[in-house]
Amino acid sequence: MSPLDPLCIDTIRMLSADAVQRARSGHPGMPMGAASMAYALWTRFLRHDPRHPDWPDRDRFLLSAGHGSMLLYSLLHLSGYELSRDEIRNFRQWGSRTPGHPEHGLTPGVEVTSGPLGQGFANGVGMAMAERFLAARFNRPGRTIVDHFTYAIVSDGDLMEGISHEAASLAGHLKLGKLIYLYDDNRITIEGATSLAWSDDTRRRFEAYGWHVQQVDGDDLEAVTGAIAHARETLDRPSLIAARTHIGHGSPNRQDSAKAHGEPLGEEELARTKQALGWPLEPAFHVPEEVRAHMGQAVARGEAWEHEWRAGLDAYARAFPADKAEWDLWMSRGLPEGWDEELRAEAEKIDAAGQPMATRAASGRALNLLARKVGNLVGGSADLGPSNNTTLTDHGDFLPGAVEGPNVHFGVREHAMAAAVNGMALHGGVRPYCGTFLVFSDYMRPSLRLAAMSHASGIFIFTHDSIGVGEDGPTHQPIEHLAALRAIPGLVVIRPADARETIEAWQVALRRGGPVALALSRQKLPSLQRTRVRLREETRQAADEAAVALGAYVLSEAAGEAPEVILIATGSEVARWVEAQGRLEAGRVATRVVSMPSWELFEEQPEAYRRFVLPKAVKVRLAVEAAAPFGWERYTLDPRAVIGMTRFGASAPGPVLFEKFGFTADAIAARALALLGRPLPDPQPPIGASR
Amino acid sequence: MSPLDPLCIDTIRMLSADAVQRARSGHPGMPMGAASMAYALWTRFLRHDPRHPDWPDRDRFLLSAGHGSMLLYSLLHLSGYELSRDEIRNFRQWGSRTPGHPEHGLTPGVEVTSGPLGQGFANGVGMAMAERFLAARFNRPGRTIVDHFTYAIVSDGDLMEGISHEAASLAGHLKLGKLIYLYDDNRITIEGATSLAWSDDTRRRFEAYGWHVQQVDGDDLEAVTGAIAHARETLDRPSLIAARTHIGHGSPNRQDSAKAHGEPLGEEELARTKQALGWPLEPAFHVPEEVRAHMGQAVARGEAWEHEWRAGLDAYARAFPADKAEWDLWMSRGLPEGWDEELRAEAEKIDAAGQPMATRAASGRALNLLARKVGNLVGGSADLGPSNNTTLTDHGDFLPGAVEGPNVHFGVREHAMAAAVNGMALHGGVRPYCGTFLVFSDYMRPSLRLAAMSHASGIFIFTHDSIGVGEDGPTHQPIEHLAALRAIPGLVVIRPADARETIEAWQVALRRGGPVALALSRQKLPSLQRTRVRLREETRQAADEAAVALGAYVLSEAAGEAPEVILIATGSEVARWVEAQGRLEAGRVATRVVSMPSWELFEEQPEAYRRFVLPKAVKVRLAVEAAAPFGWERYTLDPRAVIGMTRFGASAPGPVLFEKFGFTADAIAARALALLGRPLPDPQPPIGASR
Repeated sequence: MSPLDPLCIDTIRMLSADAVQRARSGHPGMPMGAASMAYALWTRFLRHDPRHPDWPDRDRFLLSAGHGSMLLYSLLHLSGYELSRDEIRNFRQWGSRTPGHPEHGLTPGVEVTSGPLGQGFANGVGMAMAERFLAARFNRPGRTIVDHFTYAIVSDGDLMEGISHEAASLAGHLKLGKLIYLYDDNRITIEGATSLAWSDDTRRRFEAYGWHVQQVDGDDLEAVTGAIAHARETLDRPSLIAARTHIGHGSPNRQDSAKAHGEPLGEEELARTKQALGWPLEPAFHVPEEVRAHMGQAVARGEAWEHEWRAGLDAYARAFPADKAEWDLWMSRGLPEGWDEELRAEAEKIDAAGQPMATRAASGRALNLLARKVGNLVGGSADLGPSNNTTLTDHGDFLPGAVEGPNVHFGVREHAMAAAVNGMALHGGVRPYCGTFLVFSDYMRPSLRLAAMSHASGIFIFTHDSIGVGEDGPTHQPIEHLAALRAIPGLVVIRPADARETIEAWQVALRRGGPVALALSRQKLPSLQRTRVRLREETRQAADEAAVALGAYVLSEAAGEAPEVILIATGSEVARWVEAQGRLEAGRVATRVVSMPSWELFEEQPEAYRRFVLPKAVKVRLAVEAAAPFGWERYTLDPRAVIGMTRFGASAPGPVLFEKFGFTADAIAARALALLGRPLPDPQPPIGASR
Repeated sequence: MSPLDPLCIDTIRMLSADAVQRARSGHPGMPMGAASMAYALWTRFLRHDPRHPDWPDRDRFLLSAGHGSMLLYSLLHLSGYELSRDEIRNFRQWGSRTPGHPEHGLTPGVEVTSGPLGQGFANGVGMAMAERFLAARFNRPGRTIVDHFTYAIVSDGDLMEGISHEAASLAGHLKLGKLIYLYDDNRITIEGATSLAWSDDTRRRFEAYGWHVQQVDGDDLEAVTGAIAHARETLDRPSLIAARTHIGHGSPNRQDSAKAHGEPLGEEELARTKQALGWPLEPAFHVPEEVRAHMGQAVARGEAWEHEWRAGLDAYARAFPADKAEWDLWMSRGLPEGWDEELRAEAEKIDAAGQPMATRAASGRALNLLARKVGNLVGGSADLGPSNNTTLTDHGDFLPGAVEGPNVHFGVREHAMAAAVNGMALHGGVRPYCGTFLVFSDYMRPSLRLAAMSHASGIFIFTHDSIGVGEDGPTHQPIEHLAALRAIPGLVVIRPADARETIEAWQVALRRGGPVALALSRQKLPSLQRTRVRLREETRQAADEAAVALGAYVLSEAAGEAPEVILIATGSEVARWVEAQGRLEAGRVATRVVSMPSWELFEEQPEAYRRFVLPKAVKVRLAVEAAAPFGWERYTLDPRAVIGMTRFGASAPGPVLFEKFGFTADAIAARALALLGRPLPDPQPPIGASR
């Protein structure tokens, strides 16, 4: 306890209010209300090193209530992070490191990008899971190198969102005792009092999840301190500390009102607040020297901690050099020597065998082969493990209170699963993945978006990727999902066409920084023999290794002459294209088939390569995908030249649906001929499925 | 209690198991396990009329665990709905009315499309809200015409999904006492025992939401009956009856195992099950005569109920003819005479005033004007009412336990909000709407998809529709969302360009069946004077009334000659296009500006009209939208001719962002000239934002 505590807390409040005022936009109320408890956490518990924000064993702090970003920026600034007073003054301005909501990668010390409610809450669960996995892998008796807490400040908005249920239920089930959340219980939301819309008994709710719940006065520094200490001792359950706070604390006319939430106090009210708190009216952004000195002790304290930890790591390295080497590899996101050798061999074997295989099955094989070499793959499915082929069969489970292996049972919780994967990825050290049906990617979109925005390298395995789902019907058949995923900037979507492409997709996914989504078939697909592949000299080697890495490639070149028609397809439709090529060539139409597993990877290629695959001269390009045709005109340059699904699917066996909806070699060939102006009668007109 | 009860229950079980076996796919375990409790509900409580499945005051029954569709089909078939034995035999086949998961609109008696977990759970909350709203509006002392329960069977999967938290919390808050859910507590999920992933104390959790919770043996018919009776008497809270059941009940080797969940029993095990239950091995789909007679009593019972209700309605009509007329109007989805007169007048007024206005503000005005005439608008926002302009300012709130008006405080629960809107829409009688930021449409996508699939006519108000959000930064700025919404078949997306287009969008939304999404600006937009509009003769009148209804129209025709360039834009970018037109015409480039508020509406127009707006002869068409360019090649036929956002946004004032990302009249004009092969120097190159 320091006599400076109240002054420090008021500094946080006033820095935040000043910054919002200067920006003429933002959220002053939350930082003012939560300043005390955040101060208690940051100065009395949080093990962090402002000069080494990447110290692997730091405690993680997440501001799930990201709209209160100025609270975090004030804490970072006052604790000695590389976040200057000018940055605080430039809050919410172009080019600043102090955006409206915290952005990971932009601001040192910001662990996750937050703001969309509930995301930080669930990211923290992933962080605690990563910590537990790494601790189980590396710690030895007397040689602990992984041992940190994950803290967050969460808001009523976070707790109202459904994802908080999924994440809290998962955390309670897994008994993540080193997860400690401070709930900023200010009882105000945008529309007014939380009681307008919310009557939950939050204590009871979290106890139902198996959490340890405490209730305190959030302005009582010692009470908050006691509660955090108690939470740290309660290692068999996650902890929620419900701290009663007052939004806009200190503002005479706005405290405890919805107006304090999302707009500046206004010059007058800001002045009144400063007067009420005994704060100098001028200058704005005032930081008393003694506050700077006091809170700046975080630097020395952090360096001592980090130094002590590093000494421990050195000792660990001497005792367990092989483990230390693996630690270094994992922490640097490296891959071990020969990590994909078995994958390549498998691809050859599958090619040689030529047996049909579902790409989800090939994915499961690839994942299991990878796991032999890459020890930090951690993941599972939202209760569809047997269908998604996500289980590492030679490995144990990530159990409540114990890590016997990397297999996580996420439960029917797609949203929290994705957000936890983001948390694991941003924690570092592990390579997380997860699975569900492609149609349920909708349940996790807010987290997929943040994965892309924060370059979190999770791998999202989406199986059952089309009407090939069959009898389960339209509720389970993705239509718009490929388009909707491709529209997200920075997300790489790969839809492989056979087992070999699937294996190559995994190679890409492991090498890549940032999130990758795989769209995989439920049904068996033929093995595409790459006998007529045509490669460009410069890309030959890359393509031999992994044609998928190019995004698109000439899978089967026109026989003899230059192509008149290019057939473009992805995934399960590629084989039909090759069949259609046969039909067309029998009718003397020189036809090239392009397999295009990934738009995003293709767009990254040099223009020369893109022109090689899709030469300008070939005007008739027909795309097929058993999905919404949305977006394909980018490559066909003709809306008529897309065969896709313009309606929802239906419940019937998959092969029936492909036939009824016009995905047959005959229908494709007929469409190509029509586009060439050489129509043939179409024996089976599709049922409103194509255009 | 009837001595036939056990036989009836076994009939449900065996019909379900036979159908799954014949289809060679499906979920036998749930129907077998839940047959007893479903039978108790359907034969002892459910007020329904198999011959009039649209009877407005019927009890609603929702199978949230939609994978158990054969349970519902068996009940419908045996109760005398128009669902024949052949349909049961054709389970999951092309063209049948018995798809893999229940589909509303396809099968009589199916209230909602379910299967994606958690959706039915939340739909039911909307149904109960609609019932309460209508009861408050129409019932009079001694003249009750609205008084029904909403029942559902929900599964562990439903309860694990986040949406169940949001919906249960909302239902508890609103004290929806006529909502009664049977929880099929079979403790098995796809990966195995629910305990693998789930440790919730469900009773405690639901009590925390303010629910009345009972626990019973789901196979004990009398216990279930008692619990339902008790739930019906508990009108101050929603009820959850946790019924312990056994998945695959009766199957000697599969009961209580995950294998019973999602695959046929197999011929052998099916035979063993029949033997164990004392059931004849042949024929399949056996329905004992006495069962058919007993369960078929539902028809007479239902007709009596419906008849009695109709007599009550007649008496009501005599006592309250005006109310009865409104009842008829609401039930037939009609609109009152002159419903949009004030809207039209407002559009004229706004046009004349020519003042800039945010389209969200115009939407709020439209909604409030509509509510003066259209009394069954019910809705609100997910805690963003003041921002979404969704509040009906002259009306009261939808309160816990009482309806003082139509304004719902949904809380920070986007997903449950959307699903509740679907439930209200499918209940009938009300016209539901809801609002949030466009970026958070991601949180509700599974429900938006089901709205489209089941033609549920909710109106989704998405404000803050671009980087115009400004300082809140990339987490709050939609980029991919317009594309992702447009990709959903059957969802109409409208992004109006000014106040007048916004008003017209509301006219379209009210007239339309099926869901409509409005994308609205946060920032003020200039009023587009339609002085240079060019209309086609046939569409002149329609366009005069509501150009938006055409999806796209020539807002500002090229001066003098035929256009060389067409500039296409939506929403906030249209005004910039008109500015750019001025620049281009100053440089003697004949330029047409097309406002395209809705792709879907445009695609519905006759080809002649589409060609009129976008003539083939004009090859240079430049589209601009402050969103992902994804899909725009459909209209530009050139990937270079789209100015959009290929990255996430940034935190800065909105006008700065529009400038930095290249959405300026100068940049647009320069791009158009470049496409024409008449390049001008671009004074401010955009920052990787366009392509």
